[in-house]
Amino acid sequence: MSQRAFQDYYPEEVSHCYGCGRHNEYGLQLKSYWDGEEAVAIYEPQPYHCGVAGFVYGGLMASLIDCHAMATAAAATYRAEGREMDSDPPLRFVTGSLSVRYVRPTPMGTPLELRGRVKEIKGRKVTISVNLSAKGQRCVIGEAVGIQMPDHMMPNVEPHPTSDS
Amino acid sequence: MSQRAFQDYYPEEVSHCYGCGRHNEYGLQLKSYWDGEEAVAIYEPQPYHCGVAGFVYGGLMASLIDCHAMATAAAATYRAEGREMDSDPPLRFVTGSLSVRYVRPTPMGTPLELRGRVKEIKGRKVTISVNLSAKGQRCVIGEAVGIQMPDHMMPNVEPHPTSDS
Repeated sequence: MSQRAFQDYYPEEVSHCYGCGRHNEYGLQLKSYWDGEEAVAIYEPQPYHCGVAGFVYGGLMASLIDCHAMATAAAATYRAEGREMDSDPPLRFVTGSLSVRYVRPTPMGTPLELRGRVKEIKGRKVTISVNLSAKGQRCVIGEAVGIQMPDHMMPNVEPHPTSDS
Repeated sequence: MSQRAFQDYYPEEVSHCYGCGRHNEYGLQLKSYWDGEEAVAIYEPQPYHCGVAGFVYGGLMASLIDCHAMATAAAATYRAEGREMDSDPPLRFVTGSLSVRYVRPTPMGTPLELRGRVKEIKGRKVTISVNLSAKGQRCVIGEAVGIQMPDHMMPNVEPHPTSDS
């Protein structure tokens, strides 16, 4: 995937998120991309991201689903508005609610694939469903409601970064 | 709180969880305690645990709620069975589902207080509700369903650690 990730379009000032901010050196730096109608992200947990031995920590997967869903909410809204992701004003979503269901233990030592789909776009509110799989088996089902970031949380945001920033 | 935390009763073999395992040196090492009918845990996010600037990352809070709820599920089951937490066989729960609702942005730079309550104990399944507050204001409402860990996920577990282990 040589395209630019959704998160790489986030304005500088709102790119420090622990889960997906490109400016958070301690964070997970999740990257999400379109694959047709679905948004996909791959993440390989670190050895210390375990829950019980041999299985991935549920909180990590909830976090990945959260960030992937918010990125997908933004990308989908640009699409719905017929806008490029580097057009202004920038769109950024915060999580209103998140629910996850762990359908089977998720094995360590393999990349996790997240696939998100738009369930609903309603004004500033976007609902995204996400499946998380390991080795081709669906392990976690998630859904998140994103809310377009209120202006008071995104003060003095500069226009979009250029692609080499 | 000088008591021993719920998580300090987990058997050695299942104490590596990123969120609450005392043997995970890279993890959050959450500690939960009884306060009457409620279970309480305090966690102070690191500066890099931000979402957008000035506010705590939602995935971190989902993770804390998850671990606090599973610890409370175990502690509540011991209570319901009239057992001490260091009695055998040990109890350990895994998350079946988790839902969180972010009711206001959670400020950075202050400890987070989690308060859990048992909603239902039904066989091996325990539902816990959790409120997460900062500076006395409720910021996140969570609920998690814990399932008593299946034997195949907890192989060869030794009896409980002693209190100085």
